[in-house]
Amino acid sequence: MAAPLTDRETAEVARTTAALLRAVNASDLGGVMAVWSDAGVLMPPDHASVHGRMEIERYFDRLFRQRRLTFAFTSSEIHVAGDTAFERVTYAASARPIEGGPAARDIGKGLHVYRREPTGAWRLVADIWNSDEPGSRRA
Amino acid sequence: MAAPLTDRETAEVARTTAALLRAVNASDLGGVMAVWSDAGVLMPPDHASVHGRMEIERYFDRLFRQRRLTFAFTSSEIHVAGDTAFERVTYAASARPIEGGPAARDIGKGLHVYRREPTGAWRLVADIWNSDEPGSRRA
Repeated sequence: MAAPLTDRETAEVARTTAALLRAVNASDLGGVMAVWSDAGVLMPPDHASVHGRMEIERYFDRLFRQRRLTFAFTSSEIHVAGDTAFERVTYAASARPIEGGPAARDIGKGLHVYRREPTGAWRLVADIWNSDEPGSRRA
Repeated sequence: MAAPLTDRETAEVARTTAALLRAVNASDLGGVMAVWSDAGVLMPPDHASVHGRMEIERYFDRLFRQRRLTFAFTSSEIHVAGDTAFERVTYAASARPIEGGPAARDIGKGLHVYRREPTGAWRLVADIWNSDEPGSRRA
């Protein structure tokens, strides 16, 4: 018997998040942008929202030139509703300056919103997160 | 002709957010909790996630004893997908200590996730936000 539709969709969303994570941890700009929707909105802490493919690509390009990131999602809960999916995550991260020096470490939580495109692919339309730690050095 | 279903649902979600805003700005704990789902997760910056009705009520009770909040949503974009809705907002906020002293001011952005309950009411299941301002005093 085939898996129920929502199970299959949940697994697709989970694979999309895994691809995003691999790309971020490899400083793979093309891989990150393959997951983002053209009209996505990145919502980083302590930074204005970043709107659309061109601005998001510029943001990650600059970030990857400055820091080597190592993100792990320590929990994930996915809910699929029609053409939209939400994932609530918790994360542990470190950011090591490319020019050397100690890594900044952080733990926190976030929300991913995905939209299913006409091709059937899930694409990220919103990503927001924040730290659990008051006064932490942010990753 | 009746309004399309999604327009009606979008308006219902907008009214729910307006009720949340009024309650927060009035330090009205009952009003805030009327909007939250029993199984909601509040995700404040610089603080661990707050899970479920009892913990969320305790969080807001403590907050309202400490600070008088004035929140305004400076933009809102609502997407309804079946039993779920998400709203991307930008905000301007101030927090004035109950014991006196200057208000902390903040601008930032957030995501609300709502679920429609069997009663038809939209209830908040996740709320996350963060500041736009590096090193700002947070509201």
